[in-house]
Amino acid sequence: MSLPPTVKSLFKLISNPPLCVNNLHGWVKSVRLLKKVAFIDLQDGTTSKPIKLVIPREANDCLKQLRTGQSLHIKKANWKQTPSREQSFELEALPQSVRIIGDVPDTYPLQKKYHSLSFLRSLPTLKHRSNYLGALLRFRSHVENSFASFFESQDFTKVSPPILTSSDCEGAGELFRVESNSKIASKELYFGKPTYLTVSTQLHLEIMAMALSRCWTLSPSFRAEESDTNRHLAEFWMLEAELCFIDDVRKLSKFTESMLKYVIRSCLQNKDSLLPAMVPQENTESLDNIAQRWEAMLLKEWPILSYTETIKLLQERHKKVAFKFPPSWGNALQTEHEKWLADSYNSPVFVVDYPRECKAFYMKQNNDDTVACFDLLVPQMGEIIGGSIREDDYERILQEMERRKMNTKDLEWYTSLRKQGSAPHGGFGLGLERFVSWMFGSQNVRDAIPFHRSADGVIDL
Amino acid sequence: MSLPPTVKSLFKLISNPPLCVNNLHGWVKSVRLLKKVAFIDLQDGTTSKPIKLVIPREANDCLKQLRTGQSLHIKKANWKQTPSREQSFELEALPQSVRIIGDVPDTYPLQKKYHSLSFLRSLPTLKHRSNYLGALLRFRSHVENSFASFFESQDFTKVSPPILTSSDCEGAGELFRVESNSKIASKELYFGKPTYLTVSTQLHLEIMAMALSRCWTLSPSFRAEESDTNRHLAEFWMLEAELCFIDDVRKLSKFTESMLKYVIRSCLQNKDSLLPAMVPQENTESLDNIAQRWEAMLLKEWPILSYTETIKLLQERHKKVAFKFPPSWGNALQTEHEKWLADSYNSPVFVVDYPRECKAFYMKQNNDDTVACFDLLVPQMGEIIGGSIREDDYERILQEMERRKMNTKDLEWYTSLRKQGSAPHGGFGLGLERFVSWMFGSQNVRDAIPFHRSADGVIDL
Repeated sequence: MSLPPTVKSLFKLISNPPLCVNNLHGWVKSVRLLKKVAFIDLQDGTTSKPIKLVIPREANDCLKQLRTGQSLHIKKANWKQTPSREQSFELEALPQSVRIIGDVPDTYPLQKKYHSLSFLRSLPTLKHRSNYLGALLRFRSHVENSFASFFESQDFTKVSPPILTSSDCEGAGELFRVESNSKIASKELYFGKPTYLTVSTQLHLEIMAMALSRCWTLSPSFRAEESDTNRHLAEFWMLEAELCFIDDVRKLSKFTESMLKYVIRSCLQNKDSLLPAMVPQENTESLDNIAQRWEAMLLKEWPILSYTETIKLLQERHKKVAFKFPPSWGNALQTEHEKWLADSYNSPVFVVDYPRECKAFYMKQNNDDTVACFDLLVPQMGEIIGGSIREDDYERILQEMERRKMNTKDLEWYTSLRKQGSAPHGGFGLGLERFVSWMFGSQNVRDAIPFHRSADGVIDL
Repeated sequence: MSLPPTVKSLFKLISNPPLCVNNLHGWVKSVRLLKKVAFIDLQDGTTSKPIKLVIPREANDCLKQLRTGQSLHIKKANWKQTPSREQSFELEALPQSVRIIGDVPDTYPLQKKYHSLSFLRSLPTLKHRSNYLGALLRFRSHVENSFASFFESQDFTKVSPPILTSSDCEGAGELFRVESNSKIASKELYFGKPTYLTVSTQLHLEIMAMALSRCWTLSPSFRAEESDTNRHLAEFWMLEAELCFIDDVRKLSKFTESMLKYVIRSCLQNKDSLLPAMVPQENTESLDNIAQRWEAMLLKEWPILSYTETIKLLQERHKKVAFKFPPSWGNALQTEHEKWLADSYNSPVFVVDYPRECKAFYMKQNNDDTVACFDLLVPQMGEIIGGSIREDDYERILQEMERRKMNTKDLEWYTSLRKQGSAPHGGFGLGLERFVSWMFGSQNVRDAIPFHRSADGVIDL
């Protein structure tokens, strides 16, 4: 059983074109009726480019009824080479081969004209049909497939750690509580204890890394943050990986660089079908700029700075042009610091070895007051990956938890791994929507997920 | 930056072996000390097969300290062809090249002996290191990658519909409620209305199919069922796909057959690294049987029966050997019916066109009292995929919702798609854990997910 051709599949036939195409389907993107001929741009959402249809007109043809947004069935169309035009071929169909399957009302909002992003966002059931937001979804899909093939090539096992947990991995506290609807009134607990949506799957990944050497996941994560910005989502997808037999945070950083370069290379190779035909006027990057930015990232090694070096650079800068938050050793980097640093290098930058107090309990302690962690900071966006070597010494992780006044008994299942054929290991997490919107030159992470959930509160659908 | 070799990567070098291997890591699976030589089986979880290490013994070597479960670093080992043995090569290392990285206590439970599945399940942080449960995770990962490449080859876009929703797609009612932990006491609602974990992403997928022609997702789904059987999970992963321009449920069935055959073929090609070296004695299928079963499924066309034909077959059977539930037209098929039917064909079987009353409101109505839906039933397991052509006529879906006394206003966003360049479309859902455990010959879906969540209530970790 094979499905009928897609627009994407037709573009792949250019070097070896068929005589004709049967059973093409899609939606009218635009239509132009001349006296003797009609031109239709047909799109089907499988690629950014529409396909050009030419239809000779006959007396009393039904082509006058054609409008943007209708779905069509083209029973048969001949392939015609058009080497002098922008699209190297057209499809020619007779009017009786063209059938309108689904009509649109006169009020159909997606017309052939400029639509602002805020207008598109107000149409949650139709917005994915637009050039830009449709391309963003196809781009996200490509990026996901590309990560998957990278990890497969490196012998990582893809795993599905639990979404429902009773532990709060990061200690951040902004959790969503979950209970069976039928138990809420009775105050019984479905799972016997309070249960939450995961904020990070790392602790469970570490269990599996000790069995599989290398594992990764792409799972939804949830944060009940009150901040409502274009960089935050209450529900987002996180790519997390954990690997054994690595003890050097700079090597781990370089590994993530090779991962991202693999994905960037794949995006560059497919840019014609991935990038939209055009971009909206507001807050979006031009198409040329996107492709050049990707190329530039492939050409250089991404710098690695220590946190201590970074603070010095930020303090020098602060003397010339003041930041809102003065940089000082021992404090977390602010988004303004992160953006300035990456912008000044015009490249992704790794910052390693942050002060212990800024980071989570499970990170490998260096021989000073820092831990073997890294953040990857990128221009425009700031932090995009955070990772670390994990503390694999049982006594040291226990001491650190006690110092932080954590309940060591609750996490005994986790710390005890250090006594059971343990190995140096590390890992990282990447917020998929943030990565996708940064790569795509889009300023709002909410456009990088089909239906966003955030602190602005409304779930319409 | 490239990572050190994995055991899986070494097996790929057999046809073109290197002189030596540097920086191999893994865990001792078994160790045998003879007077002049030590044999170690080393595993690293990247493949089912361990690698054989041979170490000539020296006076005062530390090899006596070696035990099952320890993690090792082998600095350098020579590759030695052993054409007459089961494994066509061995690695030879000097004792001083071997270093124990992580020790195990005397009580380390995973020894080189037979462990029952129930014993392994009682060790949630260690069980993934076992032959069988480790292989099950690698198998799941392979299956996921294989589905992804199938959908990519068919121009489907991978999408991430929301996990948090305010609608109950199936109307089944066994929902988990979600609220921000900080709002629970105040009785405010984080999202402004009651919010639940999704039971199916289908309605959102339909929106995206109307933009992308073909889309699919692999997302966690949640059912707060009270039934606690080895076929049910409260948290499971569901593969769902939705495609436009299809109006025939038999064609949709055949499309899912080609999808599953693609995945089965890929499993068969990789069976040596995917299947465990051996299977536990209890309730699991032999390795030969698994591979033969996969082969047999590729060789034949899977039958399609109508529900009405199926009821007749079941009633004939019922006269000879009674079912617990007598089969009769108008009632849902019971698991015992489904299993008997697939077993009697010794093949996956599609059943199409169920009575309207047995199925959901959104299914395309046939011209009798049935709807254009299908279930795929497989031997041993029963239903594994459910799908349908969707009702794409606005008036008919509205009438059906009114007949069922549903609130049509709440779903206006969904039904209104039928007026906006609609197209015939259909889709299906496959429970990943059920599919994986059926393929693998495992009887308990809880082993097909790394940490299960179910109505038995306990979340230990």
